Amino acid sequence: MTTARIDGVAVTTQANVYFDGKCVSHGITYPDGTKKSVGVVLPATLTFNTGAPEVMECVAGGCEYRLAGTDAWLKSGPGDKFSIPGNSSFDIRVNEAYHYICHFG
Amino acid sequence: MTTARIDGVAVTTQANVYFDGKCVSHGITYPDGTKKSVGVVLPATLTFNTGAPEVMECVAGGCEYRLAGTDAWLKSGPGDKFSIPGNSSFDIRVNEAYHYICHFG
Repeated sequence: MTTARIDGVAVTTQANVYFDGKCVSHGITYPDGTKKSVGVVLPATLTFNTGAPEVMECVAGGCEYRLAGTDAWLKSGPGDKFSIPGNSSFDIRVNEAYHYICHFG
Repeated sequence: MTTARIDGVAVTTQANVYFDGKCVSHGITYPDGTKKSVGVVLPATLTFNTGAPEVMECVAGGCEYRLAGTDAWLKSGPGDKFSIPGNSSFDIRVNEAYHYICHFG
């Protein structure tokens, strides 16, 4: 089951652009102050660093990811989630597009 | 005055990706059903076609645009808006990034 839309939130109109546009996201804020982002990673192999722990939830497309300190590339597709510890990193490779919700904390 | 955030809307989690990622947007829906999008155009010169009439509102960065049937490239920066008729087109050129809200109709 994928999350096609998120209701009742505030959207930050300015996008976050990473890696020359290979990743673009928009921040959202829930009424209780919880912040998440919705974004897309375009075809590329990238390394993301985390501050807070993150959960990446795939809403369309897919990717392969590799957590810091591991060797295995794992697949993530629509409805799948994976967790990244805080102050860590993960590699991601995308062939078409990976649409995601990023949950923090 | 720029529109930094939009409150109380639903966000479509899957991004719209145009021109190989040179333009990425997310759709938003107001409680009354009104649909808009928030997006970014990255450095490029592109031509967009309209179905419904559109108003493009710059929230950060900037662009130059040229409406169909005109010769002049006009600048649009934070807080500026420009209107495009339905079933028409416009050229846009961006040097850094053009963050926008697209209003339809």
